[in-house]
Amino acid sequence: MFQSFEDLSDPSCGAPHAALLRAELGRLGLDGFLIPRADAHQGEYVPPHDCRLQWLTGFTGSAGVAAVLDDQAAIFVDGRYTIQVREQVDMAVFPAAHLITDPVTAWLASRLKPGQKLGVDAMLHTVREVRRLRKVCETAGAELVTLDENPIDAIWIDRPEPPLGKVKLYPLELAGKASEGKIAEIQAALSEKKADACVLTQPDSIAWLLNIRGSDVTHTPLPLSFATVPSTGKPSLYIDSRKLSNSVRDALSELTDLAEPGEFMEGLKALGRDGASVMIDPSLAGIGIADAISDAGGSLIEAQDPVLLPKAVKNDVELKGAREAHIRDAAAYIKFLCWFDEEAPKGELDEIGVAEKLEEFRRDTGVLKDISFDTISGAGPNGAICHYRVSHSSNLKIPMGKPFLIDSGAQFEDGTTDITRTLAVGDVTADMKRHYTLVLKGHIAISTARFPEGTTGAQLDTLARIDLWQAGLDFDHGTGHGVGAYLSVHEGPQRIAKTGTAPLKPGMILSNEPGYYPAGEYGIRIENLEIVTEARDIAGGERPMLGFETITLVPMDLRLVDVTLLTDKERSWLNRYHDRVRGEIGPLVGAKERIWLEQATKTI
Amino acid sequence: MFQSFEDLSDPSCGAPHAALLRAELGRLGLDGFLIPRADAHQGEYVPPHDCRLQWLTGFTGSAGVAAVLDDQAAIFVDGRYTIQVREQVDMAVFPAAHLITDPVTAWLASRLKPGQKLGVDAMLHTVREVRRLRKVCETAGAELVTLDENPIDAIWIDRPEPPLGKVKLYPLELAGKASEGKIAEIQAALSEKKADACVLTQPDSIAWLLNIRGSDVTHTPLPLSFATVPSTGKPSLYIDSRKLSNSVRDALSELTDLAEPGEFMEGLKALGRDGASVMIDPSLAGIGIADAISDAGGSLIEAQDPVLLPKAVKNDVELKGAREAHIRDAAAYIKFLCWFDEEAPKGELDEIGVAEKLEEFRRDTGVLKDISFDTISGAGPNGAICHYRVSHSSNLKIPMGKPFLIDSGAQFEDGTTDITRTLAVGDVTADMKRHYTLVLKGHIAISTARFPEGTTGAQLDTLARIDLWQAGLDFDHGTGHGVGAYLSVHEGPQRIAKTGTAPLKPGMILSNEPGYYPAGEYGIRIENLEIVTEARDIAGGERPMLGFETITLVPMDLRLVDVTLLTDKERSWLNRYHDRVRGEIGPLVGAKERIWLEQATKTI
Repeated sequence: MFQSFEDLSDPSCGAPHAALLRAELGRLGLDGFLIPRADAHQGEYVPPHDCRLQWLTGFTGSAGVAAVLDDQAAIFVDGRYTIQVREQVDMAVFPAAHLITDPVTAWLASRLKPGQKLGVDAMLHTVREVRRLRKVCETAGAELVTLDENPIDAIWIDRPEPPLGKVKLYPLELAGKASEGKIAEIQAALSEKKADACVLTQPDSIAWLLNIRGSDVTHTPLPLSFATVPSTGKPSLYIDSRKLSNSVRDALSELTDLAEPGEFMEGLKALGRDGASVMIDPSLAGIGIADAISDAGGSLIEAQDPVLLPKAVKNDVELKGAREAHIRDAAAYIKFLCWFDEEAPKGELDEIGVAEKLEEFRRDTGVLKDISFDTISGAGPNGAICHYRVSHSSNLKIPMGKPFLIDSGAQFEDGTTDITRTLAVGDVTADMKRHYTLVLKGHIAISTARFPEGTTGAQLDTLARIDLWQAGLDFDHGTGHGVGAYLSVHEGPQRIAKTGTAPLKPGMILSNEPGYYPAGEYGIRIENLEIVTEARDIAGGERPMLGFETITLVPMDLRLVDVTLLTDKERSWLNRYHDRVRGEIGPLVGAKERIWLEQATKTI
Repeated sequence: MFQSFEDLSDPSCGAPHAALLRAELGRLGLDGFLIPRADAHQGEYVPPHDCRLQWLTGFTGSAGVAAVLDDQAAIFVDGRYTIQVREQVDMAVFPAAHLITDPVTAWLASRLKPGQKLGVDAMLHTVREVRRLRKVCETAGAELVTLDENPIDAIWIDRPEPPLGKVKLYPLELAGKASEGKIAEIQAALSEKKADACVLTQPDSIAWLLNIRGSDVTHTPLPLSFATVPSTGKPSLYIDSRKLSNSVRDALSELTDLAEPGEFMEGLKALGRDGASVMIDPSLAGIGIADAISDAGGSLIEAQDPVLLPKAVKNDVELKGAREAHIRDAAAYIKFLCWFDEEAPKGELDEIGVAEKLEEFRRDTGVLKDISFDTISGAGPNGAICHYRVSHSSNLKIPMGKPFLIDSGAQFEDGTTDITRTLAVGDVTADMKRHYTLVLKGHIAISTARFPEGTTGAQLDTLARIDLWQAGLDFDHGTGHGVGAYLSVHEGPQRIAKTGTAPLKPGMILSNEPGYYPAGEYGIRIENLEIVTEARDIAGGERPMLGFETITLVPMDLRLVDVTLLTDKERSWLNRYHDRVRGEIGPLVGAKERIWLEQATKTI
């Protein structure tokens, strides 16, 4: 199994580990220290080696930070984790606060005393974060100290080793563009911005650029590493050589100068000594990177990671792979749905059993590399927790008479999938149908939208919400995120959300996943992935418009649809979508599933 | 008449005036100078005394800037004025460039030479503008020189005198809140931001704060003046005392320390010498203001003009006034529409005649203070020019078989109106109806939207466009702007547009005016004003939602509606709106108009 259902939390670690840390801070002459969940790559998944926040507090969520001062401490998490943090963390040692509305900067501002020294690990805090922290310290008359060594590492006895996942070459038949061409594209962008080099800290940027994949973290084929790309000549790749087979090493040596991660800082300093003008992304690069370059005499150009946009705009081969991955995934998923409809009414299924079975159907494809994230299998009230992770202690039976929410995805070598379906189990009420249908209307509004070039995800986000708003309802997450090509299931810069300021460009892949979550009752979410399509002329129109191509091909549960709430256009969209699902996926499943599919996609 | 239809342009002034200016720059040791359209108040209307850009170039548009160097010059205007600038300005002397895509900063960057000195008038360029200009000069090795005297003023022989419009007190029955209370509110905001004072440069901020109105510029009752508000004690008002009658002077003396405009700089320096921490709006305040304070030893807090938001959120008395002004305006407008329908088919009406007649109907109310802007009376192809101003030379007959666009507004003492209607003249084609109906759908989508607190105009803007986008169409202006209470017809911070980042708050008034403009053919725009309404519970909903109350009560032309393109909800909205128009305005017009109104508001 790629998914584990263990209870990972251990609140009892908080008190002794905080005591150990305070002793270590005393030894270092520090009055406080920040422990973020992030590692130096600022990614979603962190290897056990770098789970310092978990070691200190017990908290396993994907974002957060703890602050430890002499006499008090706190942990800051966002709205997704307000319940979880109270279960996993000793609130007597680390009282919880809200990461956004009650941020660590405000907490520090009211507690730091003049002359105090607050330490941070220079690789774990970005340039932008450190700017904010410095301001807080200055105002308080305190000092921010950036550390080359993390005090936690000195006291963490049973710290796991860093991961050594094998690196594989990602073949041209799947990548669609040779690494040499990608490097040339980035170098042209650097020259245009008059940069002599850029620093890449995101492993998925490096994986895309060099056409490699790795296995250092769960669910995402990332090769943890750093790179610098000069405006001319070979990039330098800083990666543990034990991750490279001889053939991979040979191939990468053609493209790059290979070096060990321990040489990264020296490489940055060398750029600085050459007086280079180096581009860094201030939202991604640790302050240690910026300081190494500028202290050695280099200058900095702050700009978005230049790989982000080319990576987000998939080429035709990547898009072909994505379509094929989604067809394969849909066939597996329809087998799962057919099984679920047979088993669920017996009343014996639970959240874990369903997640396991879904993974099994995906494994049966024979080519599943991983699931793309831990399946969110949410029965009844657990469905209302947007980022629920089922464990043995939370595991619920799937109840009758309620919608069941399941959000999951697969990593295939040709593409990454992400799909949410909400399923009726037993008889559902008129209100549940109304809620499902309002969410569906938002989903269809995004899927059918046409929009001019330059339109951002923020502009489209409202379309997914307006029918819910009219009914006095809403959902507290973005409508959609970018998705990688056999890379991270969450990638930027594209997103459909109030904060989605990047213009959507043809070739980007985004999720379309409005929802509704009556707390304590059930959750509803409907999610397909969509490719942004080329601008096309519209009959009678004047301006070519972009649009979406839906690549997820799995029925939506008609038992939850209140047809009277749909407009003719919406009903016709749903019928056409189901015709397409039946036509494209029907031939790929067995006779039993085909009968189920006929029923599930019947015209309404 | 409040509107004039004279041709104001005189391209022949360009060459001699540029020569005069260059000689003056030589005398001052300057190599270049910028001439913005703005005066020191950065408002939409500028008195003739400050129309330096027009004097120099002939250009009369409401935004733009000219740059003059030793051997070359240029004028920069936005998309609204690309045609007009070529008619009004000598392109041999001032070639035109696009203000946004080809800005003056880029033009300067490629032309300024090391050691050169570029002058700007310190009161006409905001702190933010000067920052950008300084950067350009630094990069080029040139120097930006901020001048206390404008070189144009030394060579402009027949320069008009500054305006001396009489100031009136705006009574509590219309303002709804005494000036003392408003001042206290601003002072509380200053204290919260730890500011000792703020500087107000916008006359409408000052007018709102002190409950006064003026008559220094056309169409907007502004008293041109400056003010400073200390966190405790009396504000200082810098205004030409000749504008004040004895009674007004007495009333204002109670509230403020009165001083002449010439004492403003000295007042700022005095704040600086006291070491005060002074709040300025860097997008509104001239650099001369910032420099006067900081050079004298004060410190600056940069923040949005603290009056903007309280002024934008109207109180109940202001809202009552707005509703009454709109009912009055609707009655006049319906008389106009009835007249238009009788006259237009005869084929003799022209744009000017229609604008004059509309003003006449508004004058007939007996209480019209001004029109709120020059009526945009756009026949056929002129309707497709969004900010068209009709003059004797552009004046067209209203043609048969095309929509006619008319955008106009009134200044009444109890409120400011702004309305656009598009009217069928003769038989219109199915395509024209389709275009009108698509625009109407966008208008209805805004008018009926419910949305949670915190929603911005940018989030709503898409609702006005999505039906046009689906048809391959769009419009190149925002969907709505804020409107003042017997103040400027364009006010911030509220707007419905891609750039509308201010959350909409109950009591704000906004226009709702989507459009469509096939170039060279005709223009369509449908505009009502809407009040943002209090959050209300919705049956079956969980979250209270804001919405809009429409206050413009004039029929939309049913002859342009293709009913088959409307959803049931849209059709029902239009019928309910027309019922309301008939019910509320019917009793206020004569028998003939009432018959017309019955027909114009019939159920569809």
